Amino acid sequence: MESFFKVTELARVLDYRNRFPRIGTESVMLSQALARVLAADLAAEEDLPPFSRATMDGFAVQGASTFGASEANPAFFTVKGEVDMGEAPDFSIGPGEAARIPTGGMLPAGSDAVVMIEYAEILDEETIEVTRSAAPGQNIVRQGEDYRSGEPVLPKGRWLRAQEMGVLAALGRTSVQVFRQPLVGIISTGDEVVSIDRMPGPGQIRDINSYTLSGQVAEAGAKPVRLGVVADAYKELYRSCAAALEKSDMVLISGGSSVGVRDFTLQVFSDLPEAEVLVHGLTISPGKPTILARVGQKAVWGLPGHAVSAMIVFSAVVRPFLQHIGGLSNDSAGQVRRLPARMARNVASAPGRVDFIRVRLEKKGDSLLAEPILGKSGLIHTMVRADGLVAVGMNEEGLEKGDRVEVIPI
Amino acid sequence: MESFFKVTELARVLDYRNRFPRIGTESVMLSQALARVLAADLAAEEDLPPFSRATMDGFAVQGASTFGASEANPAFFTVKGEVDMGEAPDFSIGPGEAARIPTGGMLPAGSDAVVMIEYAEILDEETIEVTRSAAPGQNIVRQGEDYRSGEPVLPKGRWLRAQEMGVLAALGRTSVQVFRQPLVGIISTGDEVVSIDRMPGPGQIRDINSYTLSGQVAEAGAKPVRLGVVADAYKELYRSCAAALEKSDMVLISGGSSVGVRDFTLQVFSDLPEAEVLVHGLTISPGKPTILARVGQKAVWGLPGHAVSAMIVFSAVVRPFLQHIGGLSNDSAGQVRRLPARMARNVASAPGRVDFIRVRLEKKGDSLLAEPILGKSGLIHTMVRADGLVAVGMNEEGLEKGDRVEVIPI
Repeated sequence: MESFFKVTELARVLDYRNRFPRIGTESVMLSQALARVLAADLAAEEDLPPFSRATMDGFAVQGASTFGASEANPAFFTVKGEVDMGEAPDFSIGPGEAARIPTGGMLPAGSDAVVMIEYAEILDEETIEVTRSAAPGQNIVRQGEDYRSGEPVLPKGRWLRAQEMGVLAALGRTSVQVFRQPLVGIISTGDEVVSIDRMPGPGQIRDINSYTLSGQVAEAGAKPVRLGVVADAYKELYRSCAAALEKSDMVLISGGSSVGVRDFTLQVFSDLPEAEVLVHGLTISPGKPTILARVGQKAVWGLPGHAVSAMIVFSAVVRPFLQHIGGLSNDSAGQVRRLPARMARNVASAPGRVDFIRVRLEKKGDSLLAEPILGKSGLIHTMVRADGLVAVGMNEEGLEKGDRVEVIPI
Repeated sequence: MESFFKVTELARVLDYRNRFPRIGTESVMLSQALARVLAADLAAEEDLPPFSRATMDGFAVQGASTFGASEANPAFFTVKGEVDMGEAPDFSIGPGEAARIPTGGMLPAGSDAVVMIEYAEILDEETIEVTRSAAPGQNIVRQGEDYRSGEPVLPKGRWLRAQEMGVLAALGRTSVQVFRQPLVGIISTGDEVVSIDRMPGPGQIRDINSYTLSGQVAEAGAKPVRLGVVADAYKELYRSCAAALEKSDMVLISGGSSVGVRDFTLQVFSDLPEAEVLVHGLTISPGKPTILARVGQKAVWGLPGHAVSAMIVFSAVVRPFLQHIGGLSNDSAGQVRRLPARMARNVASAPGRVDFIRVRLEKKGDSLLAEPILGKSGLIHTMVRADGLVAVGMNEEGLEKGDRVEVIPI
C-alpha cells in the first residue's frame, strides 16, 4: 500500500507556504501586544529621547570647560541653578557654568555633558571644583540619540518582546497594529480515541493529540481551538472539517491519514469545496503519512495519529506555515532559534528521507552536545526527555559523533 | 554620595532567594496547564500505553514464527481474524497464526510483533505469506513501555510544554496541581515620568518601564499587575507600595532608587511593616542602584529608572527570584537556557563589578558568535538590536575575541 503515497520532499512542502496569504491585522492596546507580530513598519514620530538627559547625578556643563581638569588642577565652575526632575530648566549654561542635575533630568540649553557628582567638590553655594574632564556627550543621552524623528524603529513582521514594548511605550503608541493570532482548529480522529474525561475501554486510548498540538500551537503564538474527537467516518469528518474551516485560519486533523481501510481524511480533504490536495505523504520520519490540502485560502493538515509523529510534523512543517500566515518575518525573535551543536554519538538513519532524531542538549565548552534519545518513536517519554530535534538529511546515512548539527528546540 | 551604597555581590544576592518561600498551588484544567509549573511529583496510575499496540498497518503474529522468513523462503500464516480499531480482539494468536491489524490497534493475546503489510502477501482469505522476519517487539509498543503503573512521570517543579501536556492527557489527568502564577505589582516612579496616554511636557518622558517590566514578567511565566506612575514622594510611594504588596506576590518599583535628594524608595522599604532591606546597591553595571527588601514573606525591588538598566537587573537578578517563588526547578525547560558562544570581538570592562554586555548572536559553524552591541547603556535601541546578555565577571578586565561566554537570551 506504500505506493499510494506520492511523497513530497520537505523543502518543496515548505515552498507551498507561498500559496497561503498572510492573515488579517487588528489594533490592540499596547498592554496586549507582547508576543504579537507587528503588522506595519513603524517609524519614530518624534525624537527619542525627546530632549537631552543626564544619565548620572551630577552637574551639567559644557564639556569643553572641563578639559584638562584633574585632582591636581581642578576646574572651577559657577553654579547657575538646579534642574528639577520633569521640568525644563529656565536658564542656560555658558563656559565655566554648571547646574546641578539629577539622573534623567533635562539638560539646560548650552550644556552638553554631565560631570558625575563624585568628581565635583562643592566649595560654596555658587561654586564647585571639578577634578576630572567630561567629554561632550558624556553621562548624557542626546535628544534623538535613540531614534530620530522619521527614522525606522521596528519592521513589519517583528515579534514583540519586552524591549519592543518599551520602544512602543516611549513613542506613546497606546495601541499597535498587529497580525491577528491565527486560530487553529484541532480535531482528533480514530475509532480508538476517547476524550480524556472518559475511561477508555479495552483497545481504546485517550486523546493525546488535542493537548500536544494545542500546546504547540500556543507555543508558536497562535490560538488553538480544540474541537474534540470525531469518529473516523466520512460524514462526521467532512462535517467537522467544514465547520472547523469556518471558524479558524488553519485546521489540523490527527489520526486517519495513513492508508488504512477506515481512513477518510484524504477523501474528505479532496471533496471540500475549492480544495486542492498539495501533499499526500512526506519524505520525513516519523511523519510520513502527512496530508496538506489548500481549501480556499486555508491550509488543512492531516497529521499522523501517533502523538510523537504528529508533534514532529508540527515542529518541522506545520509551524513554519503557521508563522507565515501569522506574518512573522524570518529573522524575528519569535522564530524558533536553531541551536548549533555537535552530536554526542553516532546515529544511524535511512537515506531517502529526512529523519528527525530527538536529542537532549548538554553544554560542553563553548558548544552544545546533542545526545540522541533512544527508544521507539511511538513513545511519548522520548519527547518528555528531549530538548530538541535534529534533522538527518535525505542523502545521509546517519550522523557521526562530533558532526555539526542544528537543533530545533521543542 | 557613592559611599552610601553598601553594594552586594551578585552571587550573594541570588542566595537571598532562600529567604522567600515558594508561593501556593492551585488546581487548573489540563487545557490551562501549558507553561505552568507542576506542583507535585506525578506518577503513572496505570500502564501507558494501557495495552500493546501496533505502530504499523500489518499482521499481528508471534515474532518467533517469522524467524528465517525471506522472499526466497516465505513463512505461511493462517489468518485468524481482524483487529478492529478501539476494540479488544476476541481471539488469540498461536504459532503460525496471524491477524490483520491497523496502526494503533490492540494486539491479540499471544502476539508480540507486527509484520508490515509490505512484507505480507495475501494468498487467500485465510492465508498469508510473510517475506521478512519480525522480531518480538517489532512494529509494536508494548503495554507499559512508555510508563509503567507507579513509575515516576514528571517531577515537581517541571515547566509544562506541549509534550508534558500530552503525557498528562494520556494519563487522564483532566486537572493538574500547579504553582500559582506569581502576581507581580509594577510601579513606576519619578517626577519626570508620565503615563503613555499623556503628552509629555518639557523635561518629561513617557513611562517605559511599566511596559518593559510587564513584558519580562509575562515572558517569565508570571502575571504583571501594572499599577501606573506614582510621584516620587514618600507618602505616595508608601501608600502605593503597601497597596501593591497586598495584591501581589512581589513588587517592582522602578526609578527613585539611586541616591538622589528626592528618592524615597529606600526609606519607604525600610518603613514598611516587617521590612528588612537586604540589598542596597549591586556590584553590576548597568544596574548598580538596585534595592531588595523583604517585606513579610515578599520581595520588594527598587530598580533603576533607566529602562535598559531595569531590564538587565530583571534578567540577571529578579527573574531567578520570580522563578524560585513560582516553584520552577533549576533544570526545567521554563528556565532561560544560557547559550554557549564565543565573543566576536574584544570588549573592555571595569573590574570590581559584573558588566552586562548586550550582544547579537550569529551562527558560525557549530557555535554561536556573540557580537557586542555598541552604544550607551541608556539607549533602548541597544536592547532592540540585542539577542542576549553576556556577563563579564568581577575580576575580569574585559573579554577577548574568541573567549567562551554564556549568553542569557533576552
